[in-house]
Amino acid sequence: MYQHTTQIRVRYGETDQMGYVYYGNYSSYYEVARVEALRHLGMSYRELEDVGIMMPVLENHSCYHQPVYYDDLLSIKVTLAQMPSVKITFDYEFRTSEDKLVHSGKTVLAFMRADTKRPCRPPQAMMDLLKPYFT
Amino acid sequence: MYQHTTQIRVRYGETDQMGYVYYGNYSSYYEVARVEALRHLGMSYRELEDVGIMMPVLENHSCYHQPVYYDDLLSIKVTLAQMPSVKITFDYEFRTSEDKLVHSGKTVLAFMRADTKRPCRPPQAMMDLLKPYFT
Amino acid sequence: MYQHTTQIRVRYGETDQMGYVYYGNYSSYYEVARVEALRHLGMSYRELEDVGIMMPVLENHSCYHQPVYYDDLLSIKVTLAQMPSVKITFDYEFRTSEDKLVHSGKTVLAFMRADTKRPCRPPQAMMDLLKPYFT
Amino acid sequence: MYQHTTQIRVRYGETDQMGYVYYGNYSSYYEVARVEALRHLGMSYRELEDVGIMMPVLENHSCYHQPVYYDDLLSIKVTLAQMPSVKITFDYEFRTSEDKLVHSGKTVLAFMRADTKRPCRPPQAMMDLLKPYFT
Repeated sequence: MYQHTTQIRVRYGETDQMGYVYYGNYSSYYEVARVEALRHLGMSYRELEDVGIMMPVLENHSCYHQPVYYDDLLSIKVTLAQMPSVKITFDYEFRTSEDKLVHSGKTVLAFMRADTKRPCRPPQAMMDLLKPYFT
Repeated sequence: MYQHTTQIRVRYGETDQMGYVYYGNYSSYYEVARVEALRHLGMSYRELEDVGIMMPVLENHSCYHQPVYYDDLLSIKVTLAQMPSVKITFDYEFRTSEDKLVHSGKTVLAFMRADTKRPCRPPQAMMDLLKPYFT
Repeated sequence: MYQHTTQIRVRYGETDQMGYVYYGNYSSYYEVARVEALRHLGMSYRELEDVGIMMPVLENHSCYHQPVYYDDLLSIKVTLAQMPSVKITFDYEFRTSEDKLVHSGKTVLAFMRADTKRPCRPPQAMMDLLKPYFT
Repeated sequence: MYQHTTQIRVRYGETDQMGYVYYGNYSSYYEVARVEALRHLGMSYRELEDVGIMMPVLENHSCYHQPVYYDDLLSIKVTLAQMPSVKITFDYEFRTSEDKLVHSGKTVLAFMRADTKRPCRPPQAMMDLLKPYFT
């Protein structure tokens, strides 16, 4: 299993009039967290697209345990529990600076060739970088 | 069961560089669709907040069946399959103007008193408006 | 001069914890208003991109006269005061349902060929549609 | 004059199908940049709201010199050229990692008492922190 933790600070525009982070904005935090997890591994999602591989989202699931507030500094732990196949699943756990679990989520993405828009296998470079974490 | 269908047109800023609607923006469409479903029933969410009831989101689930594009005119069918209790569950189905199912989702919200931040029962007015659909 | 008025209803996710529409979200309203103004004229921005013309934004200016609230139904009057050249300028006035002016803005966009990324003249079809309003 | 530079990395959801950062998303970058500039000075915007002072935006101006792309790491230099009065003006300059100026902007905000919603003077603590930079 591969894990990486990223920090995010809540922006004002991400709150709503309830005074909490708007529920739709967590997806954007997930995106940052998984991209940073891949970067830490040695993969740039931008380069992936540059070589013609896109990763559209198939499923997204969110559980809002506790509200999150403006200016909160959140730790997002990303877990890759399985080696990717034509799909890849990221799990997320959000904790406040007091280490309280406030949110959890999961995103399933596909690998797709940008030219044909057809599913494909993950790039070999990604498999090579991940293999050491799954033995 | 209560159902209502709302139309939404995809804004440019809701797409991403993949050329699809960004996966995090569907939550905002859900919000519009369920608020319009309540309005059609005779309930204004704004008035609900004005009388001190908030509806924070507990869970959100999204399945992206087909990409959705800029300027697409989408029909979002909202279904309330059960009478609300301290929670209320909305299901969504998105169809294009060619009636192709492109997306489905589900949101679970709580009823909460704004003053105490504690869970509460749905307002009686909402129960009265919904009752005819569940007999 | 060409003018068109579009209505927009404020979404919950567009508010912030101040209880007003977040200042960055007006740009998205401008976009909807100018696209609808063009559609009413007979031009689809989507089709413009399909034939290889993009309209990147060069300048944007916003004046926030009065706060705008969740669920407000706003009328946005778009004005094209001049025939476009390599640039096109849209002016916006936002009014509430009580006809109070709450916001005004202006966006300058360029015409650009998608293939060369170089500025170009507006498409002839757009000039033909606009000409009757500027004589 | 007081200046502070903040870094921001462009998120995927902040791009649009043109492949650039959507023009409305810069306001959110401005917000982060000015909040971090205040934090560096010793003021937390969150605490300002906690003591009953809000800073609604009066004007916002943006000039898009060059497109900005997904995953770009931007330096945003914030300048406070004048001591605040009942208004405060922030200027922004965005540069890429190759130090190319790609964007500039300006935001004018008011100081307002949250309880009365009336304009007020900036908090004394802010004046004291800024004074050394304006002599």
